[in-house]
Amino acid sequence: LLGMGGSNQSQWGAAVAAMNVGSERSKGVVRMVQTSDETCVFEGTIDGLPPGRHALCVHEMGDISKGCSSCGEVLGAGLSEKAKGMLSELDVGKDGRAMFRLDNTDLKVWDLIGRSVIVHQGTDPNASNRLVCGIIARSSGLFQNSKRLCAC
Amino acid sequence: LLGMGGSNQSQWGAAVAAMNVGSERSKGVVRMVQTSDETCVFEGTIDGLPPGRHALCVHEMGDISKGCSSCGEVLGAGLSEKAKGMLSELDVGKDGRAMFRLDNTDLKVWDLIGRSVIVHQGTDPNASNRLVCGIIARSSGLFQNSKRLCAC
Ligand SMILES: [Zn+2]
Ligand SMILES: [Zn+2]
Repeated sequence: LLGMGGSNQSQWGAAVAAMNVGSERSKGVVRMVQTSDETCVFEGTIDGLPPGRHALCVHEMGDISKGCSSCGEVLGAGLSEKAKGMLSELDVGKDGRAMFRLDNTDLKVWDLIGRSVIVHQGTDPNASNRLVCGIIARSSGLFQNSKRLCAC
Repeated sequence: LLGMGGSNQSQWGAAVAAMNVGSERSKGVVRMVQTSDETCVFEGTIDGLPPGRHALCVHEMGDISKGCSSCGEVLGAGLSEKAKGMLSELDVGKDGRAMFRLDNTDLKVWDLIGRSVIVHQGTDPNASNRLVCGIIARSSGLFQNSKRLCAC
């Protein structure tokens, strides 16, 4: 067991996704911090979204060589009734802004690195309605205990 | 030991960096494939670079929330005489294009995920001359044997 940290900056890892792919209008940042062995916190602000209710999720890949469409399926699709990559739905008002903080116990920050965060138009996460996405990257504070990632 | 694969698509993993941050002019794609337990191949084309000789390297973080400047130091800086993140120097002619294929035995694709590839202006990899960068993301084919990454 790891010891408890005294601050919000996680010794278990932190990551960031600059939401800047797929749209001229929508921009934002999503930060992920593993605040305990169990809990990964997602915190974000995304601007320039169309008003309405939209799905927020993690997709398998972070490949943006063809924009958001090359990021693959939602993480865990088909493995259980609710894919673990389905994070939440965002309510966006007239100002076009989504702000959120989610405590998630299905995901770990070290399993998210190199994947992507996507906001869909509407609540149905199909491939043709990807509004904006960003690659989940390492940020400082990630893996202070260990600089290595490995397949396991 | 893993079995040998029959194709170039690696069972050991593949990643991609869309080089699209930090510059309006420069764009490209770098692909990384772990072709064996020892060798990680970097293959890329980047256009719109200024003519001259420029450093190509992997940096610790993939945090582009402040552009290429928030990607941290070159991977392995200070740990040995030559940082393992220093990949190569690129010769760019009047057409502004760099094409390269590098066989690297110092790095493994699974240790690169979530970091960044950076091209510097000139061969001195300091913080103020970052021309263009991209986050190293998972691409399909990565970790066919295992979907998990873990700290180890
Ligand atoms: Zn999705
Ligand atoms: Zn560098």
